[in-house]
Amino acid sequence: MPKKLRLGVLGGSGDSLIGILHRVASQINDNYEIVAAVFTPDFERNKAFASEIDMPLDRVYSDFDTFVVEEMGLPENERVQVCAILTPNYLHYPMALKLLENGFHVICEKPMTTTLQEAKELQTAHKNAGTVFALTHTYTGYPMVRQMREMIKAGVLGKIHKVDAVYYQGWINTIIHDKEKRASVWRLDPEKAGVSSCMGDIGVHAFNMLEYTTGLKVKSILSDFNYLYNDNPMDIDGTVLVRMGDHVKGVIRASQVATGEENGLAISIYGEKGAFKWQQEDPNFLYLLSDTEPTKIYKPGHAYNSAFSLDGTKLPAGHPEGIFDAMANIYKGAAKAIRNQEYNDGEFPTMLDGVRGMDFIEATVASHKGGNVWVDLENQ
Amino acid sequence: MPKKLRLGVLGGSGDSLIGILHRVASQINDNYEIVAAVFTPDFERNKAFASEIDMPLDRVYSDFDTFVVEEMGLPENERVQVCAILTPNYLHYPMALKLLENGFHVICEKPMTTTLQEAKELQTAHKNAGTVFALTHTYTGYPMVRQMREMIKAGVLGKIHKVDAVYYQGWINTIIHDKEKRASVWRLDPEKAGVSSCMGDIGVHAFNMLEYTTGLKVKSILSDFNYLYNDNPMDIDGTVLVRMGDHVKGVIRASQVATGEENGLAISIYGEKGAFKWQQEDPNFLYLLSDTEPTKIYKPGHAYNSAFSLDGTKLPAGHPEGIFDAMANIYKGAAKAIRNQEYNDGEFPTMLDGVRGMDFIEATVASHKGGNVWVDLENQ
Amino acid sequence: MPKKLRLGVLGGSGDSLIGILHRVASQINDNYEIVAAVFTPDFERNKAFASEIDMPLDRVYSDFDTFVVEEMGLPENERVQVCAILTPNYLHYPMALKLLENGFHVICEKPMTTTLQEAKELQTAHKNAGTVFALTHTYTGYPMVRQMREMIKAGVLGKIHKVDAVYYQGWINTIIHDKEKRASVWRLDPEKAGVSSCMGDIGVHAFNMLEYTTGLKVKSILSDFNYLYNDNPMDIDGTVLVRMGDHVKGVIRASQVATGEENGLAISIYGEKGAFKWQQEDPNFLYLLSDTEPTKIYKPGHAYNSAFSLDGTKLPAGHPEGIFDAMANIYKGAAKAIRNQEYNDGEFPTMLDGVRGMDFIEATVASHKGGNVWVDLENQ
Amino acid sequence: MPKKLRLGVLGGSGDSLIGILHRVASQINDNYEIVAAVFTPDFERNKAFASEIDMPLDRVYSDFDTFVVEEMGLPENERVQVCAILTPNYLHYPMALKLLENGFHVICEKPMTTTLQEAKELQTAHKNAGTVFALTHTYTGYPMVRQMREMIKAGVLGKIHKVDAVYYQGWINTIIHDKEKRASVWRLDPEKAGVSSCMGDIGVHAFNMLEYTTGLKVKSILSDFNYLYNDNPMDIDGTVLVRMGDHVKGVIRASQVATGEENGLAISIYGEKGAFKWQQEDPNFLYLLSDTEPTKIYKPGHAYNSAFSLDGTKLPAGHPEGIFDAMANIYKGAAKAIRNQEYNDGEFPTMLDGVRGMDFIEATVASHKGGNVWVDLENQ
Repeated sequence: MPKKLRLGVLGGSGDSLIGILHRVASQINDNYEIVAAVFTPDFERNKAFASEIDMPLDRVYSDFDTFVVEEMGLPENERVQVCAILTPNYLHYPMALKLLENGFHVICEKPMTTTLQEAKELQTAHKNAGTVFALTHTYTGYPMVRQMREMIKAGVLGKIHKVDAVYYQGWINTIIHDKEKRASVWRLDPEKAGVSSCMGDIGVHAFNMLEYTTGLKVKSILSDFNYLYNDNPMDIDGTVLVRMGDHVKGVIRASQVATGEENGLAISIYGEKGAFKWQQEDPNFLYLLSDTEPTKIYKPGHAYNSAFSLDGTKLPAGHPEGIFDAMANIYKGAAKAIRNQEYNDGEFPTMLDGVRGMDFIEATVASHKGGNVWVDLENQ
Repeated sequence: MPKKLRLGVLGGSGDSLIGILHRVASQINDNYEIVAAVFTPDFERNKAFASEIDMPLDRVYSDFDTFVVEEMGLPENERVQVCAILTPNYLHYPMALKLLENGFHVICEKPMTTTLQEAKELQTAHKNAGTVFALTHTYTGYPMVRQMREMIKAGVLGKIHKVDAVYYQGWINTIIHDKEKRASVWRLDPEKAGVSSCMGDIGVHAFNMLEYTTGLKVKSILSDFNYLYNDNPMDIDGTVLVRMGDHVKGVIRASQVATGEENGLAISIYGEKGAFKWQQEDPNFLYLLSDTEPTKIYKPGHAYNSAFSLDGTKLPAGHPEGIFDAMANIYKGAAKAIRNQEYNDGEFPTMLDGVRGMDFIEATVASHKGGNVWVDLENQ
Repeated sequence: MPKKLRLGVLGGSGDSLIGILHRVASQINDNYEIVAAVFTPDFERNKAFASEIDMPLDRVYSDFDTFVVEEMGLPENERVQVCAILTPNYLHYPMALKLLENGFHVICEKPMTTTLQEAKELQTAHKNAGTVFALTHTYTGYPMVRQMREMIKAGVLGKIHKVDAVYYQGWINTIIHDKEKRASVWRLDPEKAGVSSCMGDIGVHAFNMLEYTTGLKVKSILSDFNYLYNDNPMDIDGTVLVRMGDHVKGVIRASQVATGEENGLAISIYGEKGAFKWQQEDPNFLYLLSDTEPTKIYKPGHAYNSAFSLDGTKLPAGHPEGIFDAMANIYKGAAKAIRNQEYNDGEFPTMLDGVRGMDFIEATVASHKGGNVWVDLENQ
Repeated sequence: MPKKLRLGVLGGSGDSLIGILHRVASQINDNYEIVAAVFTPDFERNKAFASEIDMPLDRVYSDFDTFVVEEMGLPENERVQVCAILTPNYLHYPMALKLLENGFHVICEKPMTTTLQEAKELQTAHKNAGTVFALTHTYTGYPMVRQMREMIKAGVLGKIHKVDAVYYQGWINTIIHDKEKRASVWRLDPEKAGVSSCMGDIGVHAFNMLEYTTGLKVKSILSDFNYLYNDNPMDIDGTVLVRMGDHVKGVIRASQVATGEENGLAISIYGEKGAFKWQQEDPNFLYLLSDTEPTKIYKPGHAYNSAFSLDGTKLPAGHPEGIFDAMANIYKGAAKAIRNQEYNDGEFPTMLDGVRGMDFIEATVASHKGGNVWVDLENQ
């Protein structure tokens, strides 16, 4: 096993939940050491936070440009190898682009960019760079999601004919009914948050899970959004009809006003021979349904699971691992790729997932605004 | 308490599950006695079945017309008061019509008719008759569904903004992939089964539950069906976008090829102040969600339930009652109405539910065939 | 199929939950007709109740002795064939004895008697009578309990080595902490309720389920009760260590002060090759555990179930049947026996179950009062 | 916030699950850096593992004695401050003793020692040392366990009268039935594993959870073990009657042959006013039962939780954290104590928990071997 990879972190300072998620996940499997960072644009807070987590201050930089210049000035065997981009969405694109152009590996939060156009430009840059690009669709890192993907690939469900994904949250319900509150939240300001709230933030996860688990691609979609108030310009709820093939249909439901729901991502995949059901809030239970046999409950850590699934479990069955462990599995996969080790297809979401995600988000907006019409996704 | 009501039964002989469901339900609360019947058109089997359930044979008739003629010939205090129609769908309309015209009360299986046109004609006949007409949307009889309705009416959820209903079954999956099998099933033959399979048989239940629990009406729908095979003329799976108001949106999902699903009816209703979730296969658990408080689990038989809900529970909390008891509650409500006793609004589904159900079914077919366009439901 | 059996009912008038449970259950499968009764000792209320449920009054008797005399005076083909005893516990023994001595079949509520001595005398009377005696341990009537029994008999679990049964209720918690309340409840008065409250009322169900599902007998027990207050003479909570063989051990937990529990009967049976878990409040889910394979969920109505289990299900999978249906299955089994039809071993609990139950109850009291010592059960 | 604490690790090399649990947990909240270690007695493997996790080799020692000598020779501001003891059980005592005598803080796996006598000697040494000693009863670190403790302390349940804890595993079932296999497992060899298998390894967790959540102490116990085979000298299954007060009774069930169970720790606490139920395999759901109100489901991360519970949650509600996070909370609490920061009572298990645990283990063995008699625990 080589030395730990030198990780640079962009964004994710003290008060950031995404910060702790990545920081912990990067450390769980002893693969990464954080050696450089711009946690926040405020240089004083940046340094203060670095002290707090006991990081040496000499590579805590004042801003992203300095980060790149200084790191490029270091000898290759000291220089940051891989950067985690945890900043607000609109910074993903310029940062990732520059990092790829300078030969860094990149681990990027989703949504990958703010437009499909940016996503495709990044895709070109990535092809030129030849480095590793991992998108943190965290939920693909759960062992039972991986088990589902492996079993579907092995034909356990037969031909798939129906898919159903949902991602329901309720937190915007506490904001949306108050005119002033809803005016003050940046996520509901298209200038700051981009083209979509609900689909961009969570619907895209559900979309990604459908493609990740089935190995199929969404061909076209028709969406209907609910804005709740006429002066709210951002989707906060929507249903999306999806087609993944001539007779493979389904639906994606997403909401940020599903009152009382916490982080309710769930998927069901139905095939000729069986079906899988899984939900994120109980991630260690995977249900295999059949028309003729008892439902089976698959759990992590058992020898009956695939090697890929087992690779993502650290403890014996019955010791619940959670979302930090799922994210750690994505970091683990990226580390293998960076080290040119063998890894499973699907061990971390890729540039292509990012491009397709942006295509999906833009398509749902276009469909709704076009009067709930079918919109095709690009064929890549 | 007056004497038991004299019940006539049409359809539902030996091998019929709907037969035993109604027969048991009618007896559970000591309200009905089966005194006359045409269980099946085969007169010999008809009499044999009557013997089997130990019914006197003198009022077991050879056919429906004889039934009406003979019963009308009896003195009013011996004559059947109320008839249960359990026949194949296409007979619901002519039987109900004739019964209403002759002054009988009617308890009718759903779908009420095979077309909206028939439904509206029946509605007119019913207005003229002035008797009781109950439609057996069984699931409205569950105590916790009634509790949900009562609490929504009392404002516990605040203004509703999102609805989500699903009815997933898998049984047609065992038939549909075999060309010969699918040709031989009458439910997949539009000549015999009418305009729709999935929406007509189960989607309409989900639709009814949304209107029953919220007190709102579906204004318009957009549907997309999956036929799975080009030579299958009947919907066996579909997703329906629904609008119940300017900013009240939602979705109905229904499938008969959701592999491994049994009788998966479930609904979620989201409002400003809270949300309800309930599923038919665990009917004694009603979940009340909140953004700020712990989820609460309501169960039947507790003093905290409404009087209407408690009226539908026979045993103390923890003694699970099931679908026979739900149907029995509908029979109980109908009995109250027939006896001119006071009863709750919602104690049994009515003619209006039947008309609206047929409207919904036809609208989903029109929407899909029209290219997934919005179709309005009639405003009644 | 012969005519309905002529059923006499003793006890269970209007306000009695046990009354409605038996009355409904007796009617569910078209096997019984109630033709005679003493619902309550108050003759006026007795007749009023009979009217309420629309029963002819000519065979509604003033008291049990009259019931027997009058019925014995009827021709055999009119006379009651089988009697349901639903009275307070202390009347079970004298009524059952007299009924058996007069050649009636008996369906009796549990506990069968108030002492083991009575139980053994009844056992002798039953042997002499040669009629059918069914004890209504209702929970053995659930299809998935029957499935468990069948699969254990077929060796699915291998040699059993551990058993665990629990029956937790909370209702006495609302009474016990108030000195006056607890003095006023007859169930807490040994004069009226007999030797035990918690073990006699519910612990014995858990005991019965262990023997029913495993086919093994409890050899000896050691119990510890909790009375909560020094002036409360009746067990309201207790834990019982059980031995069913040299290396087959387990535990029965029962409580009436398990705050907030409703009717929490559950059993787990562990064997060399697998384990079963089942709980009464979710009776349609049976879990088969394995050390090496995914847990399987068995549900009623599927073709993979045994014929015996399927015989107790009336509707397809996914249509939840409940406790009325479980009791109806016991009535159905008793009807088969009375008619000398073939029936499964275990289709209804028997005299032997009653004797063993009384032995268990007395043993738990003896063990606790003897200082938590081991007490053997009789070997029959 | 001060610098990271300098952590030394004893035991827990590559193939050790307890190793990864502690290593990850120590890093999750940025409180610890591993600076010195003896991961395994094999010096070469020790160094190889240190390399694997990218630790500098200069403070990877050949054995424990060298560890202590060398570290004591370092200046205080470089020296290890706190040691994690992850070795086989029999080494806990001598290592902890020496560490305390040399002024180190200690984080120790359970069981704390192999005998009560050792435990009490350690307790004395700890008093003299005045350093922090934390015992890793991991399950007390779950946010919902902490919430339960806080709400019980606040009187939400009223006076407690009944406790019920279970810890069922099945893994020894795959070994015990094969004579050779069972002879070859060190955990079943009293020479190597000490006085108890089942109670020592898992029963003690259940015991600890009862005391942790209720704030009460177990006064006396009566136990019955199951060895399954006459030539197996170690308890692999047992039931323990417990008394926590005059009228506060309950039961602890533990098994390693509960076939198919994974890591089934669960507790129920019943009081006058309510009850709590929690299970380790679904650790983010805490149920509050009531006799008169709907059951409430508490989940981590909500503002309705206590500050202590919230301190143990890193992400918003609905993002499942697991066992690594629970252990991390214990490490976090220990860090506060080491740094003389304010911390909650119960933030980490203490020396007293260790002493009481050993007392419990020895008492259960004494009770069983003495013929299932009551044995008192010491009053401390």
